[in-house]
Amino acid sequence: MSDTRFDVLGIGNAIVDILAHAEDEFLATEGLDKGAMALVDSERAGELYAKVGSAVECSGGSAANTIAGLASLGGRAAFIGKVRDDQLGQVFRHDIKAIGVAFDTPAATDGPPTATSLVLVSPDAERTMQTYLGACVDLGPDDIDEDQVAASAITYLEGYLWDPPAAKQAFRKAADVAHAKGRKVSLSLSDPFCVDRHREDFLELVSGHVDILFANEEEIISLYQADEFDAALQAVRGHCDIVALTRGAKGSVVVAGDEVHVVDADPIERLVDTTGAGDAYAAGFLFGLSQEDDLSQCAHIGNIAASEVIQHMGARPDRPLKELVQARLGDA
Amino acid sequence: MSDTRFDVLGIGNAIVDILAHAEDEFLATEGLDKGAMALVDSERAGELYAKVGSAVECSGGSAANTIAGLASLGGRAAFIGKVRDDQLGQVFRHDIKAIGVAFDTPAATDGPPTATSLVLVSPDAERTMQTYLGACVDLGPDDIDEDQVAASAITYLEGYLWDPPAAKQAFRKAADVAHAKGRKVSLSLSDPFCVDRHREDFLELVSGHVDILFANEEEIISLYQADEFDAALQAVRGHCDIVALTRGAKGSVVVAGDEVHVVDADPIERLVDTTGAGDAYAAGFLFGLSQEDDLSQCAHIGNIAASEVIQHMGARPDRPLKELVQARLGDA
Repeated sequence: MSDTRFDVLGIGNAIVDILAHAEDEFLATEGLDKGAMALVDSERAGELYAKVGSAVECSGGSAANTIAGLASLGGRAAFIGKVRDDQLGQVFRHDIKAIGVAFDTPAATDGPPTATSLVLVSPDAERTMQTYLGACVDLGPDDIDEDQVAASAITYLEGYLWDPPAAKQAFRKAADVAHAKGRKVSLSLSDPFCVDRHREDFLELVSGHVDILFANEEEIISLYQADEFDAALQAVRGHCDIVALTRGAKGSVVVAGDEVHVVDADPIERLVDTTGAGDAYAAGFLFGLSQEDDLSQCAHIGNIAASEVIQHMGARPDRPLKELVQARLGDA
Repeated sequence: MSDTRFDVLGIGNAIVDILAHAEDEFLATEGLDKGAMALVDSERAGELYAKVGSAVECSGGSAANTIAGLASLGGRAAFIGKVRDDQLGQVFRHDIKAIGVAFDTPAATDGPPTATSLVLVSPDAERTMQTYLGACVDLGPDDIDEDQVAASAITYLEGYLWDPPAAKQAFRKAADVAHAKGRKVSLSLSDPFCVDRHREDFLELVSGHVDILFANEEEIISLYQADEFDAALQAVRGHCDIVALTRGAKGSVVVAGDEVHVVDADPIERLVDTTGAGDAYAAGFLFGLSQEDDLSQCAHIGNIAASEVIQHMGARPDRPLKELVQARLGDA
């Protein structure tokens, strides 16, 4: 799309992940929902951190991971999100800019510190997240650069943005600007508990304001309070132009009007950490769309990106996804 | 040793590593000595950081890595080092305490931030470090807890401590207290350029104040300005009770009086990042000494610990070294 500066503009919580290993017994003792993201306050975040072993810090955030993945694939990417002017804020800013993403949201100069998510990786590679939103609560409509939205083919929003108080206004403003300019709006449902917290809003968004929807099996079931995957699939059909549903090792299902594609997952050697799998899938899928690939190919690229990310600790790619996709699909 | 509270007390620079991949070409363009540690100021650290790709942050510091490794092996460990009361200082404190190390040095409440080392990992797994000493310059003799030194069988010091201005006084104070109590003093030479900077001091230390010396091939050659490994080996013989020399894939050589042991490296599956190899070797060796193992066995445990650390990114063990050593040596 020659009249755009960016293929995708992501808007999301700007978070630094703190990754540690944890046994299932620890999750149970602490009353943590395995596989989910829970919001915690500063005190609880500190209390849990004190109880876990040595950790590694990497930049994270759902939409930010997707945007980093898109840049790694060779896409033109921008991001809007709020950090503070502290050390972890510098880490977040460095990492997203280092991969080639335009990121100009000013850091907060007071208020809570940069957001962190304590990501507990279980022996079976499942991750459980405890997120302290920190400076993300300061993201608001004033942080939305309308020119940037207008210059982006797709504006991509994470459902988690519904959690901090002012971000949903930023979210709605961005969606309105995008649509007014004839651009597309994409949403990821983020997490089944997040869907629970905001079901009515999400149902309204999905039927009226979202063109491209991403969800995993648990999230789409939660949205429609369905009994099983196929029931949720039937419920969502027709609500958005494109719906991409991920199912872990079972691959993904894409629905668009009368089209339905069922695409197998990309093979992996060893599963290490599922953090960021859905984010990477969305990166690959959106990159495919930006190249005007057919939907089946978009899903393939999504699966390849996800397979890279789940084979190491951390939510962002360890090596250039562009080279990986070229090697896998053979279109150098 | 029943009258001690700690097997090893480590004293060193408290550093958070920032790990990024870098091609050899980048090192050359920036004029960086591949494989070495160079000291940089805050400005140069920021300039280099801005030029490298996405990074991962993990706790580091040479003696701190050794002490973390010792704790991971099941040893009783303590550490003295200086961080600031900032986010990276919290990361350092969390990680060393989480592995069971006693760490009570108060954080600096003003002055420079917690030290960072930009660790550039080359495709061949060699690491090149650019260290900003930050709050480490505030470590001084007042930070040495004499009771803790007196209660430690071995006080372990890194040569890098000769770089910040006041730390060498801390170093000498600790060595004097240890010897007055009949304890052992151990030194790691740290880096060939560090040896270059402080050769006279190190020669005097090695012949008069150190009981157990660790060095790699380049460091011991640098210390004696020798032409080759064997010449350096002959030069150091008799200067310390125990000298443990590491040679990468060639394993290690241990010299103690008339005893000489040449011990092969532990086999590995894939070499990923050599950061912390020497630190982990020292951890294993000192752990063996604390169990009164013979010197050959001490070297074996050192090699096993090193082999774990070089097979993943980051300088500290990813899994409990105690279990690994038991599995490898069969003495559960």
